[in-house]
Amino acid sequence: MSQSKYLSGDKVGIEEFLSRFDVFLFDCDGVLWSGDHIFDKVPETLEYLRSLDKQLVFVTNNSTKSRADYKKKFDKLGIPAKVEEVFGSSYSAAVYIARILKLPAPKNKVFVLGETGIEQELDSEGVPYIGGTDPAYRRDIEPEDFDNIANGKLLDPDVGVVLSGLDFHSNYLKTAIAFQYLQRGAVYLATNIDSTLPMAKTLFPGAGSSGAGLAKAIGRDPLSLGKPSQAMMDAVEGKFQFDRSRTCMVGDRMNTDIQFGIDGKLGGTLAVLTGVSKKEEFLEEGVKTVPLAYVDTLGDLLG
Amino acid sequence: MSQSKYLSGDKVGIEEFLSRFDVFLFDCDGVLWSGDHIFDKVPETLEYLRSLDKQLVFVTNNSTKSRADYKKKFDKLGIPAKVEEVFGSSYSAAVYIARILKLPAPKNKVFVLGETGIEQELDSEGVPYIGGTDPAYRRDIEPEDFDNIANGKLLDPDVGVVLSGLDFHSNYLKTAIAFQYLQRGAVYLATNIDSTLPMAKTLFPGAGSSGAGLAKAIGRDPLSLGKPSQAMMDAVEGKFQFDRSRTCMVGDRMNTDIQFGIDGKLGGTLAVLTGVSKKEEFLEEGVKTVPLAYVDTLGDLLG
Repeated sequence: MSQSKYLSGDKVGIEEFLSRFDVFLFDCDGVLWSGDHIFDKVPETLEYLRSLDKQLVFVTNNSTKSRADYKKKFDKLGIPAKVEEVFGSSYSAAVYIARILKLPAPKNKVFVLGETGIEQELDSEGVPYIGGTDPAYRRDIEPEDFDNIANGKLLDPDVGVVLSGLDFHSNYLKTAIAFQYLQRGAVYLATNIDSTLPMAKTLFPGAGSSGAGLAKAIGRDPLSLGKPSQAMMDAVEGKFQFDRSRTCMVGDRMNTDIQFGIDGKLGGTLAVLTGVSKKEEFLEEGVKTVPLAYVDTLGDLLG
Repeated sequence: MSQSKYLSGDKVGIEEFLSRFDVFLFDCDGVLWSGDHIFDKVPETLEYLRSLDKQLVFVTNNSTKSRADYKKKFDKLGIPAKVEEVFGSSYSAAVYIARILKLPAPKNKVFVLGETGIEQELDSEGVPYIGGTDPAYRRDIEPEDFDNIANGKLLDPDVGVVLSGLDFHSNYLKTAIAFQYLQRGAVYLATNIDSTLPMAKTLFPGAGSSGAGLAKAIGRDPLSLGKPSQAMMDAVEGKFQFDRSRTCMVGDRMNTDIQFGIDGKLGGTLAVLTGVSKKEEFLEEGVKTVPLAYVDTLGDLLG
């Protein structure tokens, strides 16, 4: 097992490392910012990479925001970025449904467990959907609903896909309806399956948690279109046409970001220690997911 | 692997089988009834067993009902039973918390994810609790809640246990609060972890599903006080003081009821085919969970 190289403060090492890549895929939360707090020297570091002609892609599992929402967040924090550089798990799922799954209309409707980011990206790909933020589904289950779910009266016969993402409005009614669609043969997808969401300096339930009730009921996991699923890597590559051997994944989570880069056979991976994973996780003997290199903070790449 | 003996229509076989036991533990849903439909000859069969001096215990994983609620259901369906004969997973959990876990007051408060059945049984054992059916927790999470969960303002410092049961009002707020209690060291229990709930001739999310978001977030399963957990068998035995070798578990689900009896080293198990599991499940070669005997319906025991 090769050791991860520590680059903070190593000017020559950084220069050599950067020279090996043309494309950098960035995780956002935990790398560029934490919540609404931007890390030191992030804009300068991204500008520096651009000045070296590196292509930047922001790959995020957060399904509650669309690419347009993300652009607003970049603007607000003063981070230079273009909408086209953002690749979120909602977009990844919409692209998968529209361009790869391609169920024949009208049986191609999606039942959404999630927030507006998913709806916006499905709209952008012309995919019909129900559920999501529709207030009709944001209510308690009532006794008569059990019969009407069982006999199909509460169901749309054109639903062919259930898409599960982070849902701050998850409830029993939606889970029961989605479960019924799956029992009737709908394709089971997720934007991502992160178990937790780092917020307010602690952990909250992530998309894998808000969707876990459905997975438990049906007894299997969805196909995830977010990191570390290679379905997302394929979608990113399809859009940006990069050379994997000249591409580096930058992230804070070993089991999603770094695994994503390793499984995708990228030329390299770079861990930052501003997020979830601690260096002890990958410096120990026998650990499987080891980044090629690591820095304390992204800004350390400025040397 | 011994074969399961088919008893329906086998008068001599039934007589021999019944003579081997003094106590019968019954699962309810799928054995005595399905929803509000009572199966043929159930009252007569139970009366017959009582006439043979058998002790009957009704062991149910349904946590939404208290023992008193269950008694009402028995009465309504015309099934003779006493409250003392009912042993539900909510009661099992309340007994475990009050008599085995025995956390020192005031740090013994329970945060409940579930319905009134759990609250009633906690009351019956004098266990303090919050959450449950309290309308204050039956709402959407708001932006400020994230901070107030993280900084503890929305938390009760006396909570030492999170108890998860079937919750028709599960939501992100409650899961996030429970997750925070667990991150702070609360004991993690469940009334039961059945993945599905058979209703209206199809499957709905069960307690294991409505609580799966929390298990996924914290990355481990709760200690279950329902079937097939032996914590429940110990509690039943503690109350009824039976001889396990002279006790038979009767149920419709291989992976909960029959497993419960086998793991508990009972003298025997009897499967009925009126519920979830089909006989193909245990008649196949190489299957691990095989009941000692099976009948098509409970009423077949009348011969």
